[in-house]
Amino acid sequence: MNKVAVIMGSNSDMPVMQDAIDILKEFQIEVEVDIVSAHRTPEKLFDFSKNAHNRGINVIIAGAGGAAHLPGMVASLSPLPVIGVPVKSSNSIDGWDSVLSILQMPGGVPVATVALNGAKNAGILAAQILGSADAAILSKIVDYKEGLKAKVIETAKNL
Amino acid sequence: MNKVAVIMGSNSDMPVMQDAIDILKEFQIEVEVDIVSAHRTPEKLFDFSKNAHNRGINVIIAGAGGAAHLPGMVASLSPLPVIGVPVKSSNSIDGWDSVLSILQMPGGVPVATVALNGAKNAGILAAQILGSADAAILSKIVDYKEGLKAKVIETAKNL
Amino acid sequence: MNKVAVIMGSNSDMPVMQDAIDILKEFQIEVEVDIVSAHRTPEKLFDFSKNAHNRGINVIIAGAGGAAHLPGMVASLSPLPVIGVPVKSSNSIDGWDSVLSILQMPGGVPVATVALNGAKNAGILAAQILGSADAAILSKIVDYKEGLKAKVIETAKNL
Amino acid sequence: MNKVAVIMGSNSDMPVMQDAIDILKEFQIEVEVDIVSAHRTPEKLFDFSKNAHNRGINVIIAGAGGAAHLPGMVASLSPLPVIGVPVKSSNSIDGWDSVLSILQMPGGVPVATVALNGAKNAGILAAQILGSADAAILSKIVDYKEGLKAKVIETAKNL
Amino acid sequence: MNKVAVIMGSNSDMPVMQDAIDILKEFQIEVEVDIVSAHRTPEKLFDFSKNAHNRGINVIIAGAGGAAHLPGMVASLSPLPVIGVPVKSSNSIDGWDSVLSILQMPGGVPVATVALNGAKNAGILAAQILGSADAAILSKIVDYKEGLKAKVIETAKNL
Amino acid sequence: MNKVAVIMGSNSDMPVMQDAIDILKEFQIEVEVDIVSAHRTPEKLFDFSKNAHNRGINVIIAGAGGAAHLPGMVASLSPLPVIGVPVKSSNSIDGWDSVLSILQMPGGVPVATVALNGAKNAGILAAQILGSADAAILSKIVDYKEGLKAKVIETAKNL
Amino acid sequence: MNKVAVIMGSNSDMPVMQDAIDILKEFQIEVEVDIVSAHRTPEKLFDFSKNAHNRGINVIIAGAGGAAHLPGMVASLSPLPVIGVPVKSSNSIDGWDSVLSILQMPGGVPVATVALNGAKNAGILAAQILGSADAAILSKIVDYKEGLKAKVIETAKNL
Amino acid sequence: MNKVAVIMGSNSDMPVMQDAIDILKEFQIEVEVDIVSAHRTPEKLFDFSKNAHNRGINVIIAGAGGAAHLPGMVASLSPLPVIGVPVKSSNSIDGWDSVLSILQMPGGVPVATVALNGAKNAGILAAQILGSADAAILSKIVDYKEGLKAKVIETAKNL
Repeated sequence: MNKVAVIMGSNSDMPVMQDAIDILKEFQIEVEVDIVSAHRTPEKLFDFSKNAHNRGINVIIAGAGGAAHLPGMVASLSPLPVIGVPVKSSNSIDGWDSVLSILQMPGGVPVATVALNGAKNAGILAAQILGSADAAILSKIVDYKEGLKAKVIETAKNL
Repeated sequence: MNKVAVIMGSNSDMPVMQDAIDILKEFQIEVEVDIVSAHRTPEKLFDFSKNAHNRGINVIIAGAGGAAHLPGMVASLSPLPVIGVPVKSSNSIDGWDSVLSILQMPGGVPVATVALNGAKNAGILAAQILGSADAAILSKIVDYKEGLKAKVIETAKNL
Repeated sequence: MNKVAVIMGSNSDMPVMQDAIDILKEFQIEVEVDIVSAHRTPEKLFDFSKNAHNRGINVIIAGAGGAAHLPGMVASLSPLPVIGVPVKSSNSIDGWDSVLSILQMPGGVPVATVALNGAKNAGILAAQILGSADAAILSKIVDYKEGLKAKVIETAKNL
Repeated sequence: MNKVAVIMGSNSDMPVMQDAIDILKEFQIEVEVDIVSAHRTPEKLFDFSKNAHNRGINVIIAGAGGAAHLPGMVASLSPLPVIGVPVKSSNSIDGWDSVLSILQMPGGVPVATVALNGAKNAGILAAQILGSADAAILSKIVDYKEGLKAKVIETAKNL
Repeated sequence: MNKVAVIMGSNSDMPVMQDAIDILKEFQIEVEVDIVSAHRTPEKLFDFSKNAHNRGINVIIAGAGGAAHLPGMVASLSPLPVIGVPVKSSNSIDGWDSVLSILQMPGGVPVATVALNGAKNAGILAAQILGSADAAILSKIVDYKEGLKAKVIETAKNL
Repeated sequence: MNKVAVIMGSNSDMPVMQDAIDILKEFQIEVEVDIVSAHRTPEKLFDFSKNAHNRGINVIIAGAGGAAHLPGMVASLSPLPVIGVPVKSSNSIDGWDSVLSILQMPGGVPVATVALNGAKNAGILAAQILGSADAAILSKIVDYKEGLKAKVIETAKNL
Repeated sequence: MNKVAVIMGSNSDMPVMQDAIDILKEFQIEVEVDIVSAHRTPEKLFDFSKNAHNRGINVIIAGAGGAAHLPGMVASLSPLPVIGVPVKSSNSIDGWDSVLSILQMPGGVPVATVALNGAKNAGILAAQILGSADAAILSKIVDYKEGLKAKVIETAKNL
Repeated sequence: MNKVAVIMGSNSDMPVMQDAIDILKEFQIEVEVDIVSAHRTPEKLFDFSKNAHNRGINVIIAGAGGAAHLPGMVASLSPLPVIGVPVKSSNSIDGWDSVLSILQMPGGVPVATVALNGAKNAGILAAQILGSADAAILSKIVDYKEGLKAKVIETAKNL
């Protein structure tokens, strides 16, 4: 069974991160959601990250804003692929701090970073990661892309 | 059998992208290397991207600089997870164009972006993606992280 | 007969791109409008770009936002002059991603980039391109510039 | 007969702007080269811009750096399409001033901006502009693009 | 008799530039106001700039936004001190284009640049320029500064 | 007895961080130096941060570059004042990532950030923090500032 | 007795700076509040800064926006630790000017800079500075951090 | 008699600031040179700024880098026009801090800012300020501009 964990640094990130949860459910992938703050609950960060791969989680999606250390710290502690979602939070300088503090990880500890507020893409990427070893999910991705195409073609017709 | 494709927009990206190839070989993961230019060989881009998942490739790493469209266009055409490496090429404005044109993909078409010139991390991330469904590779990742730690501890001792 | 194609990555770019259509109609130049998404309809992108110059189109205007690959990919596939309009879309980081991913094309594949949201100027530039080989359109451009001047002079009088 | 004027704000821009001259000669397009400084020779700027279209020039390429006003002022005074080349001159802040002061023209007065130091692309774009009304030049552009592709394919073979 | 000219690229700059007019009137310095667009009324720009010092004007304040060429072009044509006000106009990228295209003038042609939307300071600076050779105005500046101080002291008392 | 810990994410940060050690020694303040990597030795990070205040350390100086999580994670785990030094490391985008990922901490968990590569100032700030409760150190700070002044006065004399 | 001074460049900074006052009161630390403008009341700046440490103040928090010189000038004149709060004031360019003109102090004169609008963190940092020599305050910091943790845990339970 | 003071924050700014001294001497304007550090010699800053206009100085040019407070603090204390030169010093983030901390002065206290490292233009601007009330200097400015033009024309001839 595949499972994706979606965690975020604060409850205020939920409106952005919900998009990841929704698309994963659309792909019928099991999702676990939690709030884990690198700066306020560091022990929980450790416990979560150290054990995720032993609890049957395959991919971790972590969203945070400002000096966003959550995705990188999870990546430091877990062997699983970690997808980082830079959140344009209220304390962010136009999102640049969120993006750079997630993206610019040092050699050895990658975070798979998606666009600012790009939680939907984080969900799709998690599905693609699962799909790279699971033909059924890969097939859903192919269908999803066909759906995107069809919508654009339809919209173009109605111009 | 797992296989990772490492492609790049130009031969001049090779010094950066070699890091991805090296680390994948260190993990004993099969690698395929090619030059695919979104802007100069668009047909090859199409062929490569449309067929990669049918040729046994599980993850694609794509590096490019400046207005770097290669990773995003591969992601548009392939259902596989695509890792983008922003290259600080000679025609880049301090790397900002490379980063933003790979990272800021629209909803529906994610690229897993790593740090500027972060090809080594792209390789590790590809291994982690494979490892999320392959216990042997996951175990190598765990070992690799232990190695990173040991080196730091050793260096600290010699201060 | 001269014809300009105005394409955009998403229907949501229409409020910006309409300015290009309007000014071209003001110059009585034939316009063709379509939605072509580099990331969601890559096959349509190929068909459109490969054939535009054979269908009597002289200039292509392409608008997109975020990691905006549409103008560059059209320029990769078509021999026609391509004008890129960086759109400050909702998923853009203050427009910087849109600007850089359109402007910073590699040597060999130019995109004639205009200002952020500068679709009106894209239309005028298309007219100037046609006008460089068509005395009647050139004359309209001269008149248009006279009109701009007259409006400023008039406004200044009313201070 | 087609003719392209290549002008620049200072002799120090020549190493960058030479690329435009070279590629235009490669396309066998007549080129006229001059130094016209918006800030030091404003009268020459006026004379040049007002008369270029009457002297048989079809396209103007203007390169400048820092607070780069040359392309925009030529565009203000001439009905011809003006291609602007932002030059990363020694007095520039990493090229950002050059790019923004050329790209961000107000509605009514477009400059077709290419990449920072992208003079080669300015030359190709000028050829494409001429080619949009001249089948022989259009054919050369098609061939040129084939050449780009062939070189990449060849390089890829030698990996 | 001292006189300051306040010019701007567009009527839409007036809400910002009014601050310069107001403070100059507060200092009882004669002000002349006009709209001069570098891009839409280049001939007026020439006439104004070439003749200002012969018409009894001592200082020129010029405001513009986006690719803001007005202050620099006036400075190119007039021997008078030119104060540039970068305006955060609707077509500006957060004001960066306005600032850089006014500030980064090449050696030989300075523009005295003030803060983004800093028209009030442009007026005060014009007064200081006049005051450097006019004891009565210098004295008003001294008084004005005392007034600023008194207001802060008063506000602090009421905390 | 006062003690300051100077830690850094990598041995490669030592050339920058040495300035903090040197100035603290000049102030005759005891210094402890260690390498603690947030991403490669997270357990050591936890141990160090949790216990520093119980081991007699009064102030922590932490330097790191790129996505620099060390200072913020130490601040998350320790009640002591943490001074962060953004290091312009080789993998940094001109230092912006280092600065923003240290400075932009969320409410509740401050890091006292100094200038890019400003390790000397980190050392002085640590001394000032100790000096705010220790008259002897405060007096040294006063003397140090007098020394800075004297050097400038002396240099000015030799112009 | 410990005392913290909270000063700001303008009354308009109060909504931001109030957070520092509130948290200090929550820690039961004595606070002194004043308006001191580097640019409008330079004499007051001198008097305040020269004498603060003789009046029983241990830490100074200074907030300002735009070209924010207050924190740096206080640090130039006082031997006390100075915490700078960059305020995103109405005349600021997205806060970048506020951040850089406070953070980038030259060697010899540090300012402990916190996040943009991070006055709350400035207050906590002041408490931590006092706590580094005062076990009772240190203990309050430990409790405060426990409180932050508890709130996150509670919120996570209610997901 | 006219006199211009050229001051700078550090001896290391001299290579940049020499350009201001040289051009002023070329215009035969009396120059006074000094080192005045806002952060290391604040008392000298006060004395200098408070008295400059009483010592026969008409214009002040102040150069500094990083968090550059010198020009703004002089402007705070002197009624004279102050020209600020942002210096790209070794501790600067690509010059952005120098530019923003000089340019973005609050309402009431202007600094006439020139380009990054633009000391030559600061000297010319000082001459223009004197020239706005002195026909002989104005005439020299006119001649200087003619000289600039002649050099460009000559260079263009030799292409």
